[in-house]
Amino acid sequence: MQDLSSIDPAQRAALTPAQARECFRAGQVLPTAGISAGYAQANLIIVTQELAFDFLLFAQRNPKSCPILGVLEAGEVTSELLAGGDIRTDVPQYFIYENGVKVAEPTDLGGYWRDDLVTFIVGCSFTFESALMDEGIKVAHIEQNVNVPMYKTTRRSNSAGSLSGPMVVSMRPIPASQVADAVRITSRYPAVHGAPVHIGNPEELGIKDLSTPDFGDAVQIPAGHIPVFWACGVTPQAAVMESKPALAIGHAPGHMLITNARDSQYQVP
Amino acid sequence: MQDLSSIDPAQRAALTPAQARECFRAGQVLPTAGISAGYAQANLIIVTQELAFDFLLFAQRNPKSCPILGVLEAGEVTSELLAGGDIRTDVPQYFIYENGVKVAEPTDLGGYWRDDLVTFIVGCSFTFESALMDEGIKVAHIEQNVNVPMYKTTRRSNSAGSLSGPMVVSMRPIPASQVADAVRITSRYPAVHGAPVHIGNPEELGIKDLSTPDFGDAVQIPAGHIPVFWACGVTPQAAVMESKPALAIGHAPGHMLITNARDSQYQVP
Repeated sequence: MQDLSSIDPAQRAALTPAQARECFRAGQVLPTAGISAGYAQANLIIVTQELAFDFLLFAQRNPKSCPILGVLEAGEVTSELLAGGDIRTDVPQYFIYENGVKVAEPTDLGGYWRDDLVTFIVGCSFTFESALMDEGIKVAHIEQNVNVPMYKTTRRSNSAGSLSGPMVVSMRPIPASQVADAVRITSRYPAVHGAPVHIGNPEELGIKDLSTPDFGDAVQIPAGHIPVFWACGVTPQAAVMESKPALAIGHAPGHMLITNARDSQYQVP
Repeated sequence: MQDLSSIDPAQRAALTPAQARECFRAGQVLPTAGISAGYAQANLIIVTQELAFDFLLFAQRNPKSCPILGVLEAGEVTSELLAGGDIRTDVPQYFIYENGVKVAEPTDLGGYWRDDLVTFIVGCSFTFESALMDEGIKVAHIEQNVNVPMYKTTRRSNSAGSLSGPMVVSMRPIPASQVADAVRITSRYPAVHGAPVHIGNPEELGIKDLSTPDFGDAVQIPAGHIPVFWACGVTPQAAVMESKPALAIGHAPGHMLITNARDSQYQVP
């Protein structure tokens, strides 16, 4: 097994999803951007059966922030997307919420798993980052080797049943000359957040200071770069914080499930 | 109020959705193809709260047959799509299923409505028929003034929880020279079944005789026309028949909810 923190970016990119998940299963913890290039990464939200309809409806009503790639029904711990992996162990780090408050950040769900839990696997914008880089658009947080910056906004998600909350966005600074290309490229990936929701004016989203993200790390914004915002799969966790269900489980932002689905599978013409 | 059975096709096409729903609320019963041209028509499936997650997951896993346009949460009877109408009265005719068996075909839900019922409004291929006709492709069942023919197939839907069943398809005969155009045009409407699922070989779908549809009416197939099949929003009712929940309610096939959404709203570039 590789030590992910000591290998170089090219080696991380070359890992198969199964190799990467093996590292996480063994307890290694780090952001997953750039690992297993070409394979779709995914957000996680796990709720009890009673809340499952409300969440699936929340996702249906907020397709840009919550595009569903797969659902494990109550008690299921694996699916095709994981190719025999185990949802309880194969994500680098999990966030446990009780009554909307984060109470633990374990690296596996051993003590928390229950057979009435339903798992939603939600698309992640990391999926289109390879496509951006392939067309010569640099991704700042990968270049700077930090986690992507994410922000709670003042824009509301459409509520569903007991669930409501703000939209969360990820941000990538893009050279002004490449913003149109970034829109064109990412709009071809509607299953992983698709086109940006906002370009260039963080104040309008209620973001006062780009250097203090709510999740992930700040990135340096080079001169002449425009901040571009995509809907983010951490949005369900923001709804959990506001709506306070008894129990919910997410991934640690930026620390994603690496699936066996190819990024290209989510591209539309 | 108009008598829908006595007015000509141009007059039916010119009715507003509110005018059409008023006729159905008053108890008029007829297939809705061609009524309120330019407005989206929709399939209906209504289930109890306990079954609501299974059905929404069924829809998520079968997006071609069950594209969700809207959901009325438990006890809700109206929404933006109806613009103040009432889901219990505004569809021409309903099918009531108990334990998978159709037990009644009322024109309103007065005696059947319960406050724990959740309503799913599902896209309908009637939405793209205006687009087909606008580009010179005749729609046989409108020309022949009958209901669209629908068939249960041997192709299985992806199951979800307690729900499983066959895919149902609608069929339109298209001149061979226009089949490619029909694919191109309908593929731009993914929210209302999108591109065909099958072109030209009914036997492969397990359809033995096109002249005996499972729902709706047979249409004459002119020489040189190819039968083209689209996934159909009656698929949920086929799952109800097979999966036998205690209660479920659908629309009478071809007798749709006429919404206030414009067809063009569901078109993608």
